[in-house]
Amino acid sequence: MRVLGVDPGLTRCGLGVVDALAARRIALVDVSVARSHPDDAVPRRLHQIAEAVETMLETHRPEAVALERVFAQHNVSTVMGVAQVSGVVMVAAERRGIPVALYTPSEVKAAVTGDGRAGKQQVGTMVTRLLGLDEMPRPADAADALAIAIAHAWRGGSAPTASKATTDAQRRWAEAERAARRRG
Amino acid sequence: MRVLGVDPGLTRCGLGVVDALAARRIALVDVSVARSHPDDAVPRRLHQIAEAVETMLETHRPEAVALERVFAQHNVSTVMGVAQVSGVVMVAAERRGIPVALYTPSEVKAAVTGDGRAGKQQVGTMVTRLLGLDEMPRPADAADALAIAIAHAWRGGSAPTASKATTDAQRRWAEAERAARRRG
Repeated sequence: MRVLGVDPGLTRCGLGVVDALAARRIALVDVSVARSHPDDAVPRRLHQIAEAVETMLETHRPEAVALERVFAQHNVSTVMGVAQVSGVVMVAAERRGIPVALYTPSEVKAAVTGDGRAGKQQVGTMVTRLLGLDEMPRPADAADALAIAIAHAWRGGSAPTASKATTDAQRRWAEAERAARRRG
Repeated sequence: MRVLGVDPGLTRCGLGVVDALAARRIALVDVSVARSHPDDAVPRRLHQIAEAVETMLETHRPEAVALERVFAQHNVSTVMGVAQVSGVVMVAAERRGIPVALYTPSEVKAAVTGDGRAGKQQVGTMVTRLLGLDEMPRPADAADALAIAIAHAWRGGSAPTASKATTDAQRRWAEAERAARRRG
């Protein structure tokens, strides 16, 4: 199974493609970091990231996209950019009929290190080891994207995907929306 | 000048196209509300909204897109959906070389009613009057999208666009990012 992992971001967006082999072995296919300049207009920046994501999808034809789930843990500007990039990545995948799976950072850390609270260095070290690389992928966004891809590849695409599961918050919101529609 | 106004949302996304005529008169070109179902997967929902936005762009060839600026004033789930839709709209416009302008809700209210704290009903009434319609566009998302388009059409595309201006928050973030890059 081939997976594109995405660590979404507007300034740096990590993109890592891996193949799941037999016996839980994982092979690196490609890794890169799409960048855009903070001084540029947001539409232009998003477009640059979109083009890089689409090039990855066209070049490597992954069977799944695994994406870090957006939380409001950072400052508002950062979250907005991450959410915007996530939306763009989801549409790019959906257009090609590729399912999208969402993972929290702690799910990814737990998958690759066994510890949901592992640090960046530990995640990077395990990614390097699991892929049999000589050096740790840099910057951290590249290693993070590969970690997300590995987490999903190991689950064989059986993870709760964006297509199947909604968070509790999303479910409550959906119910509120429906109630609002009924009220008119 | 022809403007597509977008009131971004995942469940309902208002889309309104207007033409600015002489003497501050405004004509309605088209209005609709793109919808997606809260039970569907987010990638599918975003894709549906993207298709509706792209159909509007292809059909009416606006010279500008005006979009409501995302704030974290609602609950996190709503903001995420709005940000994701905004990102998708920005990329659709950028792909076609169409500039994107961002407006806060109070800027839009001030533009069409003279009062930045006007209520939905007042905005709807003014949109109906300004466009010479017999009935208020419904749902409110449709009227809001038209209000955003009118606000931008009246500024003749001279508004601070996403291409030129950044908010203070974005600027501070950009500076922080650059500082982080220098450190890292």
